[in-house]
Amino acid sequence: MVMEEIIRKKRDGGKLSPEEIRFVVRGTVDGSAPDYQLSALLMAIWFRGMDPEETACLTMEMADSGPRADLSRIPGFKVDKHSTGGVGDKTTLVAVPIAAACGVPCPKMSGRGLGHTGGTADKLEAIPGFRTGLTEREFFETVEQAGLSLMTQTGEAAPADKRLYALRDVTATVDSLPLIAASVMSKKIASGCGGVVLDVKAGSGAFMPDVQSAQKLARLMCQIGEQAGLKVSALITNMDEPLGNTVGNAIEVEEAMDALQGGGPADLRELSLALAAEMVFLAGKGSRKFCRKMAEEALESGRAFRRFQKMVSCQGGDPEALRRPFPLGEFTMDILAEQDGFLTRMEAAEIGRAAVLLGAGRSRKDEPIDLKAGIRIFKKTGDFVRKGDVLAELYASKESLLAQSAEKYRNALTFGTEKPELPPLIAGRIGG
Amino acid sequence: MVMEEIIRKKRDGGKLSPEEIRFVVRGTVDGSAPDYQLSALLMAIWFRGMDPEETACLTMEMADSGPRADLSRIPGFKVDKHSTGGVGDKTTLVAVPIAAACGVPCPKMSGRGLGHTGGTADKLEAIPGFRTGLTEREFFETVEQAGLSLMTQTGEAAPADKRLYALRDVTATVDSLPLIAASVMSKKIASGCGGVVLDVKAGSGAFMPDVQSAQKLARLMCQIGEQAGLKVSALITNMDEPLGNTVGNAIEVEEAMDALQGGGPADLRELSLALAAEMVFLAGKGSRKFCRKMAEEALESGRAFRRFQKMVSCQGGDPEALRRPFPLGEFTMDILAEQDGFLTRMEAAEIGRAAVLLGAGRSRKDEPIDLKAGIRIFKKTGDFVRKGDVLAELYASKESLLAQSAEKYRNALTFGTEKPELPPLIAGRIGG
Repeated sequence: MVMEEIIRKKRDGGKLSPEEIRFVVRGTVDGSAPDYQLSALLMAIWFRGMDPEETACLTMEMADSGPRADLSRIPGFKVDKHSTGGVGDKTTLVAVPIAAACGVPCPKMSGRGLGHTGGTADKLEAIPGFRTGLTEREFFETVEQAGLSLMTQTGEAAPADKRLYALRDVTATVDSLPLIAASVMSKKIASGCGGVVLDVKAGSGAFMPDVQSAQKLARLMCQIGEQAGLKVSALITNMDEPLGNTVGNAIEVEEAMDALQGGGPADLRELSLALAAEMVFLAGKGSRKFCRKMAEEALESGRAFRRFQKMVSCQGGDPEALRRPFPLGEFTMDILAEQDGFLTRMEAAEIGRAAVLLGAGRSRKDEPIDLKAGIRIFKKTGDFVRKGDVLAELYASKESLLAQSAEKYRNALTFGTEKPELPPLIAGRIGG
Repeated sequence: MVMEEIIRKKRDGGKLSPEEIRFVVRGTVDGSAPDYQLSALLMAIWFRGMDPEETACLTMEMADSGPRADLSRIPGFKVDKHSTGGVGDKTTLVAVPIAAACGVPCPKMSGRGLGHTGGTADKLEAIPGFRTGLTEREFFETVEQAGLSLMTQTGEAAPADKRLYALRDVTATVDSLPLIAASVMSKKIASGCGGVVLDVKAGSGAFMPDVQSAQKLARLMCQIGEQAGLKVSALITNMDEPLGNTVGNAIEVEEAMDALQGGGPADLRELSLALAAEMVFLAGKGSRKFCRKMAEEALESGRAFRRFQKMVSCQGGDPEALRRPFPLGEFTMDILAEQDGFLTRMEAAEIGRAAVLLGAGRSRKDEPIDLKAGIRIFKKTGDFVRKGDVLAELYASKESLLAQSAEKYRNALTFGTEKPELPPLIAGRIGG
């Protein structure tokens, strides 16, 4: 088989055969397919797409491009959770301990953040002493004791995806439905859980700009997952503004801990409960209504928080630190309203970039990030503000970073005279 | 400037600015643009195209990516000739000496062949002793003495094109109008001649499958050349079947020498005269009709052949060898007609590939080629053949190569009961 012919076939709108897809994925792993041919193929796929059959085949080949995790030593039906990425999205830190407290084992691998959306693995490092790099044995033992464990994705899971993602990232081929679906689902299949709940974000801060395209992606991912024998369900959720009132790392963990202790903003609480309930439902614990009740009870009773504390202590962190405010950057700046009016729009991606400018995110892989940098948001879409009100507070470890970030934050906001209509937080559910 | 943003812009159908194009071309030459980003951009250009302004800008940046040849030491208006590539196309070997014999200095750099179309530089090496690798001084001296010189393209001319072409070749992005136009014209502009005659092939053996797309390419190239201050004209010529009756290297030179001595097939003779006359016309020697007369006279008098002989002797070759048959592969196979009927179609590209299978061409760069391998064609499109007639004779240096090539040759032919209508050899002219 010749790589160039495969590129040409896709370029001309053809359907790749399973053998051709296998050839590409093997070449990706063993290095026989050079970067320049892979990136030309990725661009051809960006233009021509892949049908569900091709996408499922690509996913399975990628899932099997490395060893699949064997979680059989952990008893019970294990459920994973995945978000397609949003700004201020700390739901993993809340939903997963809730599901664990409802008796669903949650061995979860998380990625690091790149661009304007943060990664759970990064955020967790804000917890003093907490280690996200575990051995398999430590991972299993933590799940056994706490019911959940959050660790960094190991390099071994779906190695083909690792190389392809790195290429997509620098060749403007990230936002392709089949490529996103194959990337996410190959890792989920390789991670070894029996079920997965997808949080597919739609809006200005997400890969998918609108509910329709998010639904399309969600359907594709559910279909692929089910073909691979997984139970999958997806919530389509709003990412037109940041989730909750914080963007960063330490500051987001602090907010998530508030939520686990009964506080926190309503949107974070609601989405976390919905995702957790869906995880519990996939694990077969009862009807959706019953699972939602279980989730609420697990949160309100404090059991979810104690599960999280237990996990933190198993992974070397200080569980008592979770009750206290997290240290943040010593330089701060308030962003004040310059006029009266309704806040009608918050460009989530721009707010994410404002946080990156503070040092809270990476624009390149392997860049260090400042866990103490971040944004606390005081006014959200639909709020009426008066001139001089504090819209947000920025935190940084270097004073020089504040001004540019503040400008970006300001540019992300639109004001108007009428109260805007707010889209629902959860626009729908697919599969399950 | 960020390469990824440039890729994204083109991917989304945007127009690249002169600064962006310059950034890409500089990155191509200095190595700061990695292969994988260039190939993604090339694929995006394949899909989205480039407008004439972008194409002209890319061409000029590529032309200036290395030093332009300074031909000012050669007096007179120098004219170059370029073919977009065809099977059995040996017109350079005939047209250029005719133009030289009409008083037009022709310092011409030629490329090597890749794929099913041969390169003039390869063919010339079939002449005993002939050197295509010359110093600048030898090149100038040969033009001074013979009126023409044919040498291998030096690596220095338009180095950006060299790298981009190598990438296009393995990423299925060769057949893009703006990329072909920029590649050809950047080299022509860098080569330092004042005029260039383009032979834009249309048909099954050419990049451009039909006359319309060939005209489009020709118009684009003429426009770019004129913007760069060149005199350019293009003939649109038929490449549905091989040109002349030979495909290979030594065997094509032999046929070209026949043509220069008053023999050879009618199509080769006619196209060579037309191209040469156009070169003479661009050099301002008179009306088109007058230039055609001059060209005919130069050919019939034997002056063109003597010019070629002189060049060969200046470049270390044996001018007397040109009068004798060239040694060909010792293993031969006749391809016989299996039925009576008209030969209605000859897939030129397939015939080119049959020659590659004999060893006459390369499927990869830097592969050695067998100059003695080739095909002699006895029946062409429109000929009536009887069962048992010899359709073609294959020559190879290894007996084992014959069978597969014969099969490919056979598959390239279609027979029918009615005499097919033949397209004109020259479908039109653009510019000039």
